Amino acid sequence: MRNNTSSDLIVVGSGLVGLVTAWRAAQRGLSVTVISQENRNAASVVAAGMLTPATEATFGEEPLMRFGTLSRDRYPAFITELEDESGLPAGFRTTGTLQIAFDADDLAKLRDLSELQTRLGIKTERLTSRECRRMEPMLAPSVRGGILAPDDHSVDPRLLADALWAAAERNGVGGIRDRVTEVLVSDDRARGVRLESGGEIGADQVVLAAGAWTSSIGGLPDGVLPPLRPVKGQLLRLHTPAGESPIVSRTVRGLVKGSPVYFVPRENGEIVLGATQEELGHDLRLTAGALWGILRDAHELVPGVSELEVAETCVGLRPGSPDNEPLLGPTHLPGLQVAVGHFRHGVLLAPATGDAMAEALTRGELPDYARRFAATREFGSDRNE
Amino acid sequence: MRNNTSSDLIVVGSGLVGLVTAWRAAQRGLSVTVISQENRNAASVVAAGMLTPATEATFGEEPLMRFGTLSRDRYPAFITELEDESGLPAGFRTTGTLQIAFDADDLAKLRDLSELQTRLGIKTERLTSRECRRMEPMLAPSVRGGILAPDDHSVDPRLLADALWAAAERNGVGGIRDRVTEVLVSDDRARGVRLESGGEIGADQVVLAAGAWTSSIGGLPDGVLPPLRPVKGQLLRLHTPAGESPIVSRTVRGLVKGSPVYFVPRENGEIVLGATQEELGHDLRLTAGALWGILRDAHELVPGVSELEVAETCVGLRPGSPDNEPLLGPTHLPGLQVAVGHFRHGVLLAPATGDAMAEALTRGELPDYARRFAATREFGSDRNE
Repeated sequence: MRNNTSSDLIVVGSGLVGLVTAWRAAQRGLSVTVISQENRNAASVVAAGMLTPATEATFGEEPLMRFGTLSRDRYPAFITELEDESGLPAGFRTTGTLQIAFDADDLAKLRDLSELQTRLGIKTERLTSRECRRMEPMLAPSVRGGILAPDDHSVDPRLLADALWAAAERNGVGGIRDRVTEVLVSDDRARGVRLESGGEIGADQVVLAAGAWTSSIGGLPDGVLPPLRPVKGQLLRLHTPAGESPIVSRTVRGLVKGSPVYFVPRENGEIVLGATQEELGHDLRLTAGALWGILRDAHELVPGVSELEVAETCVGLRPGSPDNEPLLGPTHLPGLQVAVGHFRHGVLLAPATGDAMAEALTRGELPDYARRFAATREFGSDRNE
Repeated sequence: MRNNTSSDLIVVGSGLVGLVTAWRAAQRGLSVTVISQENRNAASVVAAGMLTPATEATFGEEPLMRFGTLSRDRYPAFITELEDESGLPAGFRTTGTLQIAFDADDLAKLRDLSELQTRLGIKTERLTSRECRRMEPMLAPSVRGGILAPDDHSVDPRLLADALWAAAERNGVGGIRDRVTEVLVSDDRARGVRLESGGEIGADQVVLAAGAWTSSIGGLPDGVLPPLRPVKGQLLRLHTPAGESPIVSRTVRGLVKGSPVYFVPRENGEIVLGATQEELGHDLRLTAGALWGILRDAHELVPGVSELEVAETCVGLRPGSPDNEPLLGPTHLPGLQVAVGHFRHGVLLAPATGDAMAEALTRGELPDYARRFAATREFGSDRNE
């Protein structure tokens, strides 16, 4: 080892998943070093921060939805503890989510979703067009109806990351700005990592949590890490002009001719408008078609969006596993664990992931509620190609 | 004067109009200093660079159209001389302009334009939908027809500005990066300018050419400068992916349900897509509605625009005079001349403006072809409020 530093644990990646893992592990007494690069295309930097397992229920599978609901239910206590330890706000808003439909077909899809929610025991409420507009007066009159999910909240992922860094540092976590080029393996065990700058750092355990960039880390024997695919998302961050009311007061998710669009408002007047979902590999181009599609659908639902300032356009890569569920805990290589593959759900799943990873790192195995997502699970050949 | 420097001529502003004035005046033997700030919202920085008096004919008045045609006809020799003196390319493309219509009403408007062009002796050609698509294969099949203006070309205003700076410097023009806060006036004559950094610079003559920012320059007696209003324009700069053909091969201007949109392609694969025209004062916000409107109309005409990368979003302020025509030459204050108010036509009018201003600065009056635009003209009270 060229560097003398050594930790109980190295976490590769400082997205929400990496940071929550570092914080929770440090709370349990491990000495932790987080190694990461600045990355404005990371999912945690780009993400809108919806905590919406209820309104995602049609799109995910039931076990993932249950894990999401468990994680969402931990959010209030998680935020209280985090803001307390860090002294920083995390931008958590408990205003619920309104899901709305643009045309009759979209409304039929919302009815199906509502039935699924009822079957799964999720508390939601169907609303008429007028009831939707009473809740959100700037909705277009043409909106056909909706569902209120009172427990689907939101958080500001950038503030959350700042708070997690601060809380982690208070627990002794160290940070290194560098790129990990490979995991050091000897005697069939992970022993640390090599840095792009040339150094090596040893550790008893290594956690890979580098999102869609995790696959670029070398040194791993075949079969330790299933293939991860980047799923591109493009979105916009808008600002409400000074002195004007925000165009929506809670998260609004819409279906417009089958195409999803969302508005996530923040206390400071920011509104995140998204998002595309594109399977194009490591493509980071902002495209005219993405901006047009998002703005078109947003304008159908809330025409007043046109008056807002475009503060930022973002392109991010979500990490998708072969079955679109996270990969957590020990791998087949002793000393190496992972926390990746959170796809669209990294922000939502952060609290439960942190808890599960701290358990796996200190006791050697995942807790029951996370065992389904074990990184060592087998994937069907149809999904694993 | 705190500074000892003194010139025959100070030009305030380094947009195309200021630079062409400085270059042409220096060629006639004047010692010239250009004073300007970096300004990414200046019309010359944002402009697409269309040289299209024929396809603008409906929107302008006839005298302005004639001045535009005169300036356009000087472009080839102007570019040859400029590229020769500067050693830099100006991005001049002689591929003509295709104007197209989206629906029947838009086509009717193009027919009116075509009749006006014929009446004015402008060479254009009416085309069927199929003929349009033969010229530009990526046009939507729904395009109803168009007009080819073979002499309406384009230039890259950013390259043009670089070339003008270089040519001006070769002729001894000096540059100062500072903001001019006021014109120094004594004994009823302009004597120089005061700088924000504190200095003063003397000159025999001062030319104000600071576009939409000209009105912020103090020190002028009442009535010397008519009111100028900023007219906001928002546009996008797109890039063609490597290895792909550009979506259009010449300037394409479209009318979509009455709303104008244009595509200006460059040799390097850039396509400028614009533009809004908004009367909102000095408002520099990029808005969701502007991006949406431009992309929507562009998509109607050339669906392939969706695949292009968004390289830059721009907000600029065009300088509009009370009658939307330029203000050139001497003012009522001896020693002070102006070259402002070029509104949407600054790039087109640069060659003729440079020639006219050089004449006015060396002989004391504008040449005949520019006399209509004298800065001392009276404005009707209905327009001058």
